Amino acid sequence: MTDSSASQTEYRIERDTMGEVKVPAQALYRAQTQRAVENFPISGRTLERAHIEALARVKKAAALANKELGVLDAELADAIVIAAEQVESGELDEHFPVDVFQTGSGTSSNMNTNEVLATLANRHLKEQGSDKEVHPNDHVNASQSSNDVFPTSVHVAATSALVNDLKPALTYLAEALEAKAGEFGSIVKSGRTHLMDATPVTLGQEFGGYAAQVRYGIERIESALPRVAEVPLGGTAVGTGINTPLGFAEKAIRSLAEDSGLPLTEARDHFEAQANRDGLVEASGQLRNIAYSLMKINNDLRWMGSGPNTGLGELAIPDLQPGSSIMPGKVNPVICESAIQVCAQVIGNDTTVALSSTNGAFELNVGIPVMAANLLESIRLLKNTSYVMADKMIKGLTANEERAAFLAGASPSVVTPLNKHIGYEAAAEIAKHAVKNKKTVREAVVELGYLERGELTEQQLDEALDVLSMTQPG
Amino acid sequence: MTDSSASQTEYRIERDTMGEVKVPAQALYRAQTQRAVENFPISGRTLERAHIEALARVKKAAALANKELGVLDAELADAIVIAAEQVESGELDEHFPVDVFQTGSGTSSNMNTNEVLATLANRHLKEQGSDKEVHPNDHVNASQSSNDVFPTSVHVAATSALVNDLKPALTYLAEALEAKAGEFGSIVKSGRTHLMDATPVTLGQEFGGYAAQVRYGIERIESALPRVAEVPLGGTAVGTGINTPLGFAEKAIRSLAEDSGLPLTEARDHFEAQANRDGLVEASGQLRNIAYSLMKINNDLRWMGSGPNTGLGELAIPDLQPGSSIMPGKVNPVICESAIQVCAQVIGNDTTVALSSTNGAFELNVGIPVMAANLLESIRLLKNTSYVMADKMIKGLTANEERAAFLAGASPSVVTPLNKHIGYEAAAEIAKHAVKNKKTVREAVVELGYLERGELTEQQLDEALDVLSMTQPG
Amino acid sequence: MTDSSASQTEYRIERDTMGEVKVPAQALYRAQTQRAVENFPISGRTLERAHIEALARVKKAAALANKELGVLDAELADAIVIAAEQVESGELDEHFPVDVFQTGSGTSSNMNTNEVLATLANRHLKEQGSDKEVHPNDHVNASQSSNDVFPTSVHVAATSALVNDLKPALTYLAEALEAKAGEFGSIVKSGRTHLMDATPVTLGQEFGGYAAQVRYGIERIESALPRVAEVPLGGTAVGTGINTPLGFAEKAIRSLAEDSGLPLTEARDHFEAQANRDGLVEASGQLRNIAYSLMKINNDLRWMGSGPNTGLGELAIPDLQPGSSIMPGKVNPVICESAIQVCAQVIGNDTTVALSSTNGAFELNVGIPVMAANLLESIRLLKNTSYVMADKMIKGLTANEERAAFLAGASPSVVTPLNKHIGYEAAAEIAKHAVKNKKTVREAVVELGYLERGELTEQQLDEALDVLSMTQPG
Amino acid sequence: MTDSSASQTEYRIERDTMGEVKVPAQALYRAQTQRAVENFPISGRTLERAHIEALARVKKAAALANKELGVLDAELADAIVIAAEQVESGELDEHFPVDVFQTGSGTSSNMNTNEVLATLANRHLKEQGSDKEVHPNDHVNASQSSNDVFPTSVHVAATSALVNDLKPALTYLAEALEAKAGEFGSIVKSGRTHLMDATPVTLGQEFGGYAAQVRYGIERIESALPRVAEVPLGGTAVGTGINTPLGFAEKAIRSLAEDSGLPLTEARDHFEAQANRDGLVEASGQLRNIAYSLMKINNDLRWMGSGPNTGLGELAIPDLQPGSSIMPGKVNPVICESAIQVCAQVIGNDTTVALSSTNGAFELNVGIPVMAANLLESIRLLKNTSYVMADKMIKGLTANEERAAFLAGASPSVVTPLNKHIGYEAAAEIAKHAVKNKKTVREAVVELGYLERGELTEQQLDEALDVLSMTQPG
Repeated sequence: MTDSSASQTEYRIERDTMGEVKVPAQALYRAQTQRAVENFPISGRTLERAHIEALARVKKAAALANKELGVLDAELADAIVIAAEQVESGELDEHFPVDVFQTGSGTSSNMNTNEVLATLANRHLKEQGSDKEVHPNDHVNASQSSNDVFPTSVHVAATSALVNDLKPALTYLAEALEAKAGEFGSIVKSGRTHLMDATPVTLGQEFGGYAAQVRYGIERIESALPRVAEVPLGGTAVGTGINTPLGFAEKAIRSLAEDSGLPLTEARDHFEAQANRDGLVEASGQLRNIAYSLMKINNDLRWMGSGPNTGLGELAIPDLQPGSSIMPGKVNPVICESAIQVCAQVIGNDTTVALSSTNGAFELNVGIPVMAANLLESIRLLKNTSYVMADKMIKGLTANEERAAFLAGASPSVVTPLNKHIGYEAAAEIAKHAVKNKKTVREAVVELGYLERGELTEQQLDEALDVLSMTQPG
Repeated sequence: MTDSSASQTEYRIERDTMGEVKVPAQALYRAQTQRAVENFPISGRTLERAHIEALARVKKAAALANKELGVLDAELADAIVIAAEQVESGELDEHFPVDVFQTGSGTSSNMNTNEVLATLANRHLKEQGSDKEVHPNDHVNASQSSNDVFPTSVHVAATSALVNDLKPALTYLAEALEAKAGEFGSIVKSGRTHLMDATPVTLGQEFGGYAAQVRYGIERIESALPRVAEVPLGGTAVGTGINTPLGFAEKAIRSLAEDSGLPLTEARDHFEAQANRDGLVEASGQLRNIAYSLMKINNDLRWMGSGPNTGLGELAIPDLQPGSSIMPGKVNPVICESAIQVCAQVIGNDTTVALSSTNGAFELNVGIPVMAANLLESIRLLKNTSYVMADKMIKGLTANEERAAFLAGASPSVVTPLNKHIGYEAAAEIAKHAVKNKKTVREAVVELGYLERGELTEQQLDEALDVLSMTQPG
Repeated sequence: MTDSSASQTEYRIERDTMGEVKVPAQALYRAQTQRAVENFPISGRTLERAHIEALARVKKAAALANKELGVLDAELADAIVIAAEQVESGELDEHFPVDVFQTGSGTSSNMNTNEVLATLANRHLKEQGSDKEVHPNDHVNASQSSNDVFPTSVHVAATSALVNDLKPALTYLAEALEAKAGEFGSIVKSGRTHLMDATPVTLGQEFGGYAAQVRYGIERIESALPRVAEVPLGGTAVGTGINTPLGFAEKAIRSLAEDSGLPLTEARDHFEAQANRDGLVEASGQLRNIAYSLMKINNDLRWMGSGPNTGLGELAIPDLQPGSSIMPGKVNPVICESAIQVCAQVIGNDTTVALSSTNGAFELNVGIPVMAANLLESIRLLKNTSYVMADKMIKGLTANEERAAFLAGASPSVVTPLNKHIGYEAAAEIAKHAVKNKKTVREAVVELGYLERGELTEQQLDEALDVLSMTQPG
Repeated sequence: MTDSSASQTEYRIERDTMGEVKVPAQALYRAQTQRAVENFPISGRTLERAHIEALARVKKAAALANKELGVLDAELADAIVIAAEQVESGELDEHFPVDVFQTGSGTSSNMNTNEVLATLANRHLKEQGSDKEVHPNDHVNASQSSNDVFPTSVHVAATSALVNDLKPALTYLAEALEAKAGEFGSIVKSGRTHLMDATPVTLGQEFGGYAAQVRYGIERIESALPRVAEVPLGGTAVGTGINTPLGFAEKAIRSLAEDSGLPLTEARDHFEAQANRDGLVEASGQLRNIAYSLMKINNDLRWMGSGPNTGLGELAIPDLQPGSSIMPGKVNPVICESAIQVCAQVIGNDTTVALSSTNGAFELNVGIPVMAANLLESIRLLKNTSYVMADKMIKGLTANEERAAFLAGASPSVVTPLNKHIGYEAAAEIAKHAVKNKKTVREAVVELGYLERGELTEQQLDEALDVLSMTQPG
């Protein structure tokens, strides 16, 4: 809406405490939103959908609490609730045109919400034949301040996105990996440490590890939730709760929790909650962790799929699109690359979120909108990439079982079980002999006279060199 | 277009080397673009405008070089040039729907460009009555690979954005600060070190410092340009220039430089240029530097404007919008806060760009699209915020001269010039006496008997305590 | 020891699987350690004390489990345990000279430990008259690999440092802040949002918020512990547990947990645990969070202590040392600055730790030593700075109560309680009038005729403008 | 010295403006240093050697300028110069015990220097029979402030370390890579893009690219130097040059440049130079760039050396130490891993340096000591790792020429030159046929009838499939 406002020809005049402003005739918002649109022609990015929804939910909960506590006339409160539900649904997002890079408290977006809800509520009241009027500050914002409402909305949106979007997506991804772990359970391959040939593992063990890593990511989200789901609502301007009736915070937050089905709680210390957004930094840190986990998984998969003829070639990654504009027939691990780029973005977004902590002083952090935009984008990206990874790649992976088995046997580290028979130093001599002379470990054992001298029996050697048995203790 | 494609009802069938694909009937792109749209439903972010423009320019330059070198039929080449200019203009951006989070080489966007240009060129040829046909790979992409074209387009877009967008914007900002430095040249105020009262400076000196800092930012951009403006074009698939005629790189890049008016040069080592995007990381690092500079400036301004009654109150920041939804009449330094959030975003974007270096192996980095998106967004944000800072804040700043002068005199550090008369230790005693007893330094000097004992004369004292003379050496 | 080895004149010859090496005559270590000393002359930084202690503990636990499971002769096992306890004590740290920047698995430090323990154990055996001999690999390292032992030692050291060092330090800091919160409970001051005058708070409320923020830091540590305290021991080379007897992992880890008193558990998935150090990244992320929290607190304190005459001047920070070499009598908030620099270091260290995730492939991360060094340094720095902050600053803070109260009353935002009587817009007019005309809010109310017109009564005005009552809801 | 001071039994009493302090009897420093030792028991890290040397050089230059300008008695000045040269030499570093995590201006280290130099100068004067006395503030620090001296010393140390240490080290590394590029010039291997088989390159081309990347790193250092080598000396307390005689800055800096042989210049704007350390952030950003470059090079080398039997196996990396405590005979790319960890440290250090920008306000940044420590450590680490990489790895690399050539021919992307004969789509069909049926490209061409149908001649095919000719244009 920012850019197109130039071509808007119809305006109406709105007023706020600073005077008159020309507002697009059809806009549901009013003077303060319009000022913000004009003051912040920066990025073209506006609030994430989940964020607008959360703002509407907070306003609804506040209206209900205000009504219950007698701060707000029931008719006005009900009209606000109806308006909030309209905004919640997502159909009016175009009326939230304020740039992310706005006032650091999000006051412009809070007032945008107040103005849109007042306009909608008044339409509703008029339709009902009422001559009452809802004021953006005095009624929609009653018992609230941008300083508690806006951060509350971020915590609500983040909690919702983590619980309702990201956890299911990561679970879906973990399940896809677990299914493959089962499928690949008996495929033996060479382990690799330092990128060098190591003792064998099964491909299923590796995929089980990937699944476990994703499930730890879910645990990390859960471990952050108690602090992400704590909201500052009720602190109003500076944490003291000035201009709230007694009981407001508790009632409004209970209503918000019930309405959203989220485990929201009231800030245990309203001064900490007003001044800092540490819970968001923590959540972002856990997303960073998940991003690094997904990077590792995708890198492993890319390497196992490398080739077809000059790489490791243990895995075939689904062929989704032509890989090269010049090299015909080339197939690339494009979903891995997309995912790794998502991870890089999430890690960069996390820098923005965490660094924004330095943007707090005394009773307010003034980097909240940029924290919100980055945190919510990261959740959205990780969610989408989890589904895409699972559906367009993981499920379609096939193993090159023969090659994997061949390489497992070719690793000089299969000498390792001989340690207990002949000691580490003698075993090292065998491995070095094998590599130097391009022999198998078995051949090297024979050539170096271990059977001849009776230091090892054939049976010991057979048992020791069984690669499948090397994939477990004992 | 990604999201709305669901509601598209009209399709046509396109083919590529993998088979048939349904493509929206009106789309200028073809099968490979459509596959990418379907493969990467991740973020909804598509290439930056400057990036699409640069891709078109590269294709134009390549077509001209191919024509000159006899690789491409002149009629086809000319049709491609016309098509490229259409895309360059920006009117067809909706036909570039591929998500940023795509294949890491940008092959999908290169093929998107090849397909759109082929379609447009063929329309043009048909209009001209020609029965020749342009093929996306064989003609539009002739002598090229995604692996040199796509990174070239990023370097071209970045060079253009740095030279044509950011440098003028920073210059504009520096000039606004310099104008204020002149205006504030004789306003004495207290210096502050460790946030504590220090010896006096003029407000003009401070603003001169801010302007200098911005101008250093411009120098930093210039110092990176030689490496940002180097392009890998001509390296094709892996840096060897396979499938290019001799002389292609030189001709195409010269043409690109002339067409764009940018100081573009051919990569001095095509293998370095193919495998790494270090020039982008360097540019991003310089943007990070500028972001931290702007943070400092905005933080100083916010603090000098703090108050009106409980802060430093040395500066009045223009009043652009109501500052609080609950505290009536409040005015906040919203442009500073917007700018600081931009800085946090640029710093986070820089993390993404730099970290993407780890996403390179052998002959290709596969994090180029996310590097491009972040670098170009950062330039755009810094450009916009520079203008907004200058126009909506710096130009409107007014100094509270009286208060500044009062505070300058109140700083106990005005004792400093006495060092040369009585030594550091005696001067320290005076300062401590002044602070402890809430006296001025002059009063403390008198009370401690320096005049009485003749250790200082009245004239020495007057000269020493002249705050304006403290703002320069000698 | 690296640097001084040049001046060492006495050597003995040691051997490993690669041949002979000259080792300082008095060194307890042997060939592999010496090779590492020579291979890695990089930083001069060696393992953190807590890390060497943890390595010794792991070796002790492994020896006990090996003895119990019959893998190791009891006499050898007991000698290893005695040796391990010597190393644990810290008296032999000089025999751990390997640089942090070594092989990424920490194999050199594992072998350093194996060699030192073998030497010590053999001395002990000899003293006991035994002719048995302990081998570094075959006995000290029995049932182990660097790939499980070294990361286990990092997790043990980190868990110990978090539980035994950092949690008590943060608790101590929180208590100091809480004590001040009590002391400052009735000191009213101006709140500040956007750095601008806001409604009043008490200084105690602010300090309570700081204390809460520190206590959340403790919660963050606790929330990460379950994953930090999980150890990969028993996975040996690649997670499969090759060359371990059944039951080894369980027995060794139980022993380790009991010996250390730490809540250590066995990795739930040994393949995840072998390949990734995500638990360390998570812990580091929480330290980053704490660092940003401490930055905020120290910045607030510095600003409240700014002055003495040109700043906010609400708080006096203890005077610990002369603040300036040129400005006599200057006092600076040096502990705050030291702490903020610690925070910057911790945040940078966290980048190193997290980025090292990219240094993992397949069954091993090869950035473990640098992760360990940075994580353990960060914990140590945060611990020390917490005590220093508490003892040298927080406890000595005194409030400038008079000035705080004056500023509280001077804030135009004290108009806020009038919203409910006259509405936000009228209240805004009053605030603007007050600021513009340098009047108090009360004076502005009178001048604008609210009492005269009966829109407010004197009593309403008195109640509304009582600053202390503004520091709570209702 | 911090830790051992507890066991010191002999003390003397020193005084400063705050009173008496007990100082170790043998210490050359005095009261303010001792206070700092006690105030900052944080890390145990003290100033880098290069930093102490630079502090001494600055003091020497200041003394000479003060002497020339008549501010300082010649005898005192000469004694200070002699003292400074003693400190410069490095023999007295133990008398600089102040922790890095000290006051943010480095005042404690500046006073430490002033005190040590005063003590040494006074000893010298006494030896000369003079009864004059040098005072730390009034003489050693004459015409200076910590606020210009300390940052000047950091810029001097950084410039010196970049010019004298890092540039030669990187040059040495580049030369080692270039030597290998020559040696490997005719070894053909498969290119790899997206990790997948691509068209051929020579190993020499790859090494030439690595060398070029390192040489770009040198360029990056050079491009930052003009701003790193600018020093704030002469600005004294706040940039105004208060308490300096006219001409001081120019004379002192000229002397400093001549004495050090470094291209040092006076700050173009002393207010920018006083308030910000952007030049250090820029230098650190360039180090980050170099670190990412070295990561890429080391990762490529590790991968080419992966195996011996299950990896790419194109390169043999020198065998420096036993690679595994459990897997006998294992050899790992330990220098690569050490280097990559150095890179991770440098990148983390860079975060600390850059973030410290936020620690500046008005006329001073108060994060200078931590910036200095991290920047100088990074330079030192990169220097050492460059030499180690060259000497212990690069020089010893050998290529597996046979395997490289085999893989080059096995890549299906050798089909690429056929594009110009038969078009991209037909070539893609051939490649896919080859991969699917495990045939060479030549076999696929034959099987698909291209020769038979006369679409290609034998000679065309031979020329097209010559892998060496694919490594260049034309």
